[in-house]
Amino acid sequence: MSSHGNPLINQNDNRPLLGGENVTVFDRWLANKLMQVIGMPQINLVLWNDEMIYKSPNSVATMKLHDRSAMFKIISNPDINAGDLYSTGRLTIDGDLIRFLEVVYKSLDEASKHSWFTRVIASWQQRPRPNSMSRSLDNIHHHYDLGNDFYRLWLDKEAMQYTCAYYPSAEASLEEAQQAKMHHIARKLQLKPGDKVVEAGCGWGGLARFMAKNYGVQVSSFNISREQIAYARDKAKQQGLSAQVDYIEDDYRNIKGKYDVFVSVGMLEHVGVDNFAPLGEVVNRCLKKDGRGLIHSIGRNRPKLMNGWIERRIFPGAYPPSLKEMMNIFEPYDFSVLDVENIRLHYARTLKHWLERFDQHQVEINEMFDENFIRAWRLYLAGSIAAFTTGDLQLFQIVFNRRESNQVPWTREHIYQ
Amino acid sequence: MSSHGNPLINQNDNRPLLGGENVTVFDRWLANKLMQVIGMPQINLVLWNDEMIYKSPNSVATMKLHDRSAMFKIISNPDINAGDLYSTGRLTIDGDLIRFLEVVYKSLDEASKHSWFTRVIASWQQRPRPNSMSRSLDNIHHHYDLGNDFYRLWLDKEAMQYTCAYYPSAEASLEEAQQAKMHHIARKLQLKPGDKVVEAGCGWGGLARFMAKNYGVQVSSFNISREQIAYARDKAKQQGLSAQVDYIEDDYRNIKGKYDVFVSVGMLEHVGVDNFAPLGEVVNRCLKKDGRGLIHSIGRNRPKLMNGWIERRIFPGAYPPSLKEMMNIFEPYDFSVLDVENIRLHYARTLKHWLERFDQHQVEINEMFDENFIRAWRLYLAGSIAAFTTGDLQLFQIVFNRRESNQVPWTREHIYQ
Repeated sequence: MSSHGNPLINQNDNRPLLGGENVTVFDRWLANKLMQVIGMPQINLVLWNDEMIYKSPNSVATMKLHDRSAMFKIISNPDINAGDLYSTGRLTIDGDLIRFLEVVYKSLDEASKHSWFTRVIASWQQRPRPNSMSRSLDNIHHHYDLGNDFYRLWLDKEAMQYTCAYYPSAEASLEEAQQAKMHHIARKLQLKPGDKVVEAGCGWGGLARFMAKNYGVQVSSFNISREQIAYARDKAKQQGLSAQVDYIEDDYRNIKGKYDVFVSVGMLEHVGVDNFAPLGEVVNRCLKKDGRGLIHSIGRNRPKLMNGWIERRIFPGAYPPSLKEMMNIFEPYDFSVLDVENIRLHYARTLKHWLERFDQHQVEINEMFDENFIRAWRLYLAGSIAAFTTGDLQLFQIVFNRRESNQVPWTREHIYQ
Repeated sequence: MSSHGNPLINQNDNRPLLGGENVTVFDRWLANKLMQVIGMPQINLVLWNDEMIYKSPNSVATMKLHDRSAMFKIISNPDINAGDLYSTGRLTIDGDLIRFLEVVYKSLDEASKHSWFTRVIASWQQRPRPNSMSRSLDNIHHHYDLGNDFYRLWLDKEAMQYTCAYYPSAEASLEEAQQAKMHHIARKLQLKPGDKVVEAGCGWGGLARFMAKNYGVQVSSFNISREQIAYARDKAKQQGLSAQVDYIEDDYRNIKGKYDVFVSVGMLEHVGVDNFAPLGEVVNRCLKKDGRGLIHSIGRNRPKLMNGWIERRIFPGAYPPSLKEMMNIFEPYDFSVLDVENIRLHYARTLKHWLERFDQHQVEINEMFDENFIRAWRLYLAGSIAAFTTGDLQLFQIVFNRRESNQVPWTREHIYQ
């Protein structure tokens, strides 16, 4: 596979590093201001002349700014520029990247409670753009069409699940945890042979094939990523599941028909809050009287914009909603929420497994993409780990059904048998 | 114990039944209008001259209106007056009261989707009054100070839990299910010996004693009902638990100190949505860094006023919130919701057990209260069963902790071991 170049970084801004400049009194003042804005985390700060401008007693890592312009950029819009500067090598981290991000996230969160300056900087962030159908297409192609060969290198081998796994025990492998996640979902949904299942956003189709194979259900899976759909169909054919699984290259808003089960894993965070009531309408239209549904999504404790760099460079249009915002799917149609589980620490572990494999395959990935892309992707994975370990992000699985249905298991014990 | 009279019924309105009047053309037109407003449920309607004005092919019960004024009253404000008329014997139900209420609830819900007239009638309902501290006191005394001897007759013997039980199996007795409920809560909260627990709204103190005895924790329980607190203290003394359980006659808003665990079972539905953020503030003030919390409350799929008659005559100030509304407790303080479980069908079963025992003890209850009270109480219990079986009401248990704490069980399996 030939190089894709770097779709993540603003290419015009990839100018040569400006090392070796003098550090002035104003530079030092500004560097200290920067540390204040981010709440004086336990890190060291080094400038382009190798001068250590700030030394923390319990430092977890050292951040180096390689030129004056990088410092200006990070102060003018830290949310977007820090990621770009890291990706282009003008900001480097010496030490554990994940620990560095964890202490900075915690520190920023504390600082924003107390400092008006930090809040003003944070307010420069922009709302994600609303997801019209054509916009959704652009956003999804941006990320998911980087190439199946790329994702295959670091996702689980069997089902290529690009969503949070479920670790029944702390020692489970990524493959075991992704299988366990799919069983966990299937049990929560009480799948039984012959059930008609509709899936909104199916990735590479792993869950659909798993449910068809292990639970004898009939699945219609919707996805707007052409590469993923092509891969999913191939796999289903290889596994003799083509009659049981129908992969449909279309938007979830175009779902037709009546189903026993609605399931959506890892799509909601790309949908946008404005589309939650319309999503509820889709579910209401397609779910039978005694139907069950499950939505699995990244979320928040309270509404907050997506990290600007991730939203711009990695997941355009992404917005992890709070539970309160998610209720806009269910309330208008009188759905009963039956079960909510928060497994954010499982996502931190999933991401650690992904990052480990990503690093193990650097040679192959280097043949596909340039250094900037690799740095950007590592930052995205490490930053996501830090967001889940510090509670900045949550992972919710929500089970629901229609108000009028009493066809629910008496307890949740069956999930754990 | 001498008779309490009837605190539930407006005494002035308890006038003699006006049977035997002629039924006019206008009466018949109005009776048909009434059936239309309530959505033509599967019931028969009989007027005061024994004329069957409406006969449903699959009728579950027959409603009789015993005088013309009763018909006017039920049409002018069905929400409040139907209950009062039933209590005073001017509206009677021949057949299964629970089934009657179930079909009427379902029918009303359907009708309100389609009929502007039904919606207008429904809109005559009033918002519950806001719960100031002195108002809370009035409201709670109204209900809970009816006398411990009364509640003892039909609640579970051991712990006198006036909240939804948890039936591990469909065959469990009320006593078993209330014990199982308390274990379920204790496991969700991962109680361990020495934990400091604060309880907001403790009823007769059964859960506090149970946790102290079975999990070795130290409990401070708040309640504003004097009779309940006196009972709870006596019981703790008898059981040698006085050193472990402290019952405090005070409002939850006055909770002081730092605790490992916050628990509140069956209080939130009396708190009022305006007090949710202040409740969150109380929890935020009293919960330690790695603390856990659980709130157990009646709820709704979407915001809706409490049934007017129940709110006026049985539970003044009650309002079962939707999950979205409940999030106003957690979001402002960045709490992480870890687990939500909906066990509404368990409440229907609990209420059926209560109603059975209530009926078994009619002789004793008759010595305490008059016939009107007994009819009112039966209507309240039967109506609540119907509300839970038809999904008009939900029962949520919500587990939460602080965002920054990673001291959470790896899975929920421990709850089911």
